[in-house]
Amino acid sequence: MHIDELDTPVLTVDLDALEANLDRYQRYYDEHKIGLRPHIKTHKTLAIAHMQMKAGAIGLTCQKIGEAEVMAGGGITSDLLIPYNILGQQKLDRLMALARQAHVTVAADSDVVVRGLSAAAHAAGLTLGVVIEVETGSNRTGVPTAEEALQLAQLIDKLPGLEMRGLMGYPTPPEARPIFQQTIDLLDRAGLPHPIVSGGGTRCAFQAHEIPELTEYRIGEHIVGGVGHLLAGRHTVEQCALRVIATVVSRPVDGRAVLDCGSKTMSATILQTENGPSIGHIVEYPDARFYSFSEEHGHVDVSACARKPVIGERVQVIPVHPCPCVNEHDELIAVRKGQVEAIWPIYARGKIR
Amino acid sequence: MHIDELDTPVLTVDLDALEANLDRYQRYYDEHKIGLRPHIKTHKTLAIAHMQMKAGAIGLTCQKIGEAEVMAGGGITSDLLIPYNILGQQKLDRLMALARQAHVTVAADSDVVVRGLSAAAHAAGLTLGVVIEVETGSNRTGVPTAEEALQLAQLIDKLPGLEMRGLMGYPTPPEARPIFQQTIDLLDRAGLPHPIVSGGGTRCAFQAHEIPELTEYRIGEHIVGGVGHLLAGRHTVEQCALRVIATVVSRPVDGRAVLDCGSKTMSATILQTENGPSIGHIVEYPDARFYSFSEEHGHVDVSACARKPVIGERVQVIPVHPCPCVNEHDELIAVRKGQVEAIWPIYARGKIR
Repeated sequence: MHIDELDTPVLTVDLDALEANLDRYQRYYDEHKIGLRPHIKTHKTLAIAHMQMKAGAIGLTCQKIGEAEVMAGGGITSDLLIPYNILGQQKLDRLMALARQAHVTVAADSDVVVRGLSAAAHAAGLTLGVVIEVETGSNRTGVPTAEEALQLAQLIDKLPGLEMRGLMGYPTPPEARPIFQQTIDLLDRAGLPHPIVSGGGTRCAFQAHEIPELTEYRIGEHIVGGVGHLLAGRHTVEQCALRVIATVVSRPVDGRAVLDCGSKTMSATILQTENGPSIGHIVEYPDARFYSFSEEHGHVDVSACARKPVIGERVQVIPVHPCPCVNEHDELIAVRKGQVEAIWPIYARGKIR
Repeated sequence: MHIDELDTPVLTVDLDALEANLDRYQRYYDEHKIGLRPHIKTHKTLAIAHMQMKAGAIGLTCQKIGEAEVMAGGGITSDLLIPYNILGQQKLDRLMALARQAHVTVAADSDVVVRGLSAAAHAAGLTLGVVIEVETGSNRTGVPTAEEALQLAQLIDKLPGLEMRGLMGYPTPPEARPIFQQTIDLLDRAGLPHPIVSGGGTRCAFQAHEIPELTEYRIGEHIVGGVGHLLAGRHTVEQCALRVIATVVSRPVDGRAVLDCGSKTMSATILQTENGPSIGHIVEYPDARFYSFSEEHGHVDVSACARKPVIGERVQVIPVHPCPCVNEHDELIAVRKGQVEAIWPIYARGKIR
């Protein structure tokens, strides 16, 4: 089946581009002897996760237990990291069940979380691996100082059912090195282990080696790119493998085209660029500005386009942020040279718990 | 089951508030003898659609064929409006199948769309109702002038398989009246019918009577509100029926709380308010600012809160825009006075085609 036969809007991934990205990044991490632990939140599919493992990934990153359950249930059990504070009996029960079928490591940034993990693992007769999340610039989660990381490490080391496995941070540009160095120094002096030192973030993916302490790196978007990566020069248009195929459904005035992909297809993500807000990059009309949306309409300014699209015409749109875009879809259509090769269910879509 | 027993994050709707909103708006439209045609894009569930029909709605609005298929398949076939330009053989085939089981009206704003609808209806031996979309301020779809609307009406009237049913616009504040008046005048002079004159938009829902030409009105968000409506005074906190229940998973520094609901739970919608960007309103902490998100983390500034939430604490979050938020979820939990009354599958979620 040719992609022109697919009804629109539809989410596609180009296999040649996907495989080339996968290979390009895996080679960098192999070369620098850093483990690559892809983040499945970008693609949320088993098919791509298996491709990543086959290419040399040391394991996977899953942001919620539900995502990890999908991966384990799909046959990937060798090494799953959930870099998330897991709290509450229902989630702890599921985590223990998961830990029986897969090698699981979780993150924590507070004693409340660590104590909950310990109680659950101890009651289940399991040993659960824990890494400490440190603040490296996201102003999100993570203990803000090496001293607090040490305190948490001592607690993990002391409590039953837990195994101290190291540190993680997100994002980890080269400037994030000091907190890793400081924490490792304190851990070493206290005789506490840190087999995992995990960095992450596609933006600085090729600078991971500038923090020599890192044993592994977590990235998701590298395999498909997106408008942010395109504008920053990290991915070319050809390397942006994820595309929404859309149809022009209206041309009410000369300068405006309306696509059948709104926020329900693209996600509600808006990227602020030099040229104003962007919802996506239209491959066939690089001078068009996809500047706004409703739920089912994409609003495109085509006034700068020499040739303008006509009603019924199909275009390919690179989303600004692949992860939330993928989460809007049930299926990802894998294509190669314009032909459909596979239809992949997005099994981890909507796994918010 | 009490809502405190539900694992988080989870999407809930308060039935007392939902029913009161439903009643409040239905009464207004009944009073003004304007048909209320609720837009199902907000809730995407059959349960609420049936409640709306029972309360007195004249029919439903569905933005894509897939949404209309869900409603028709769920027993609501009496009057469905799809205010969307439908193009392409696959969608036209589905539309014809739908038109055999339900009374369907579609919108069009170009001759390309009208000709496609006519060819499909004629080939299927059906008569399809069409309303013309006119531009009323959205700068989205819709013919920009009454003269163009007349031309399209004449085409609809001439082509086989179609029935001219009138006009629609979105949004339709009182200022939108002139294009309705002008178009109706031209249609009357040409002897063309316009049994439907359809307005829409929750913002001006209670001003519908200021455009006396309107025979019906389309709204979706009125039943659950949202932060935009809250800030504008259209809904009180109590009237904002849709809430995400979330858990505080991190308190890394004194002024910041992190929730387990990010864009994958709330949608990536950001509302720009006087106090900066907002992702949601936290009911228990009205002074907190839910200012940012990652996919699975909600970033909240709690520095202005006298009492600050602790790790593990549960909060209720009113989303900024209910429609895309609902689309992230598979289930909507209906609650009354804190008890779970029903678990409603969000059947029209993801119906982008």
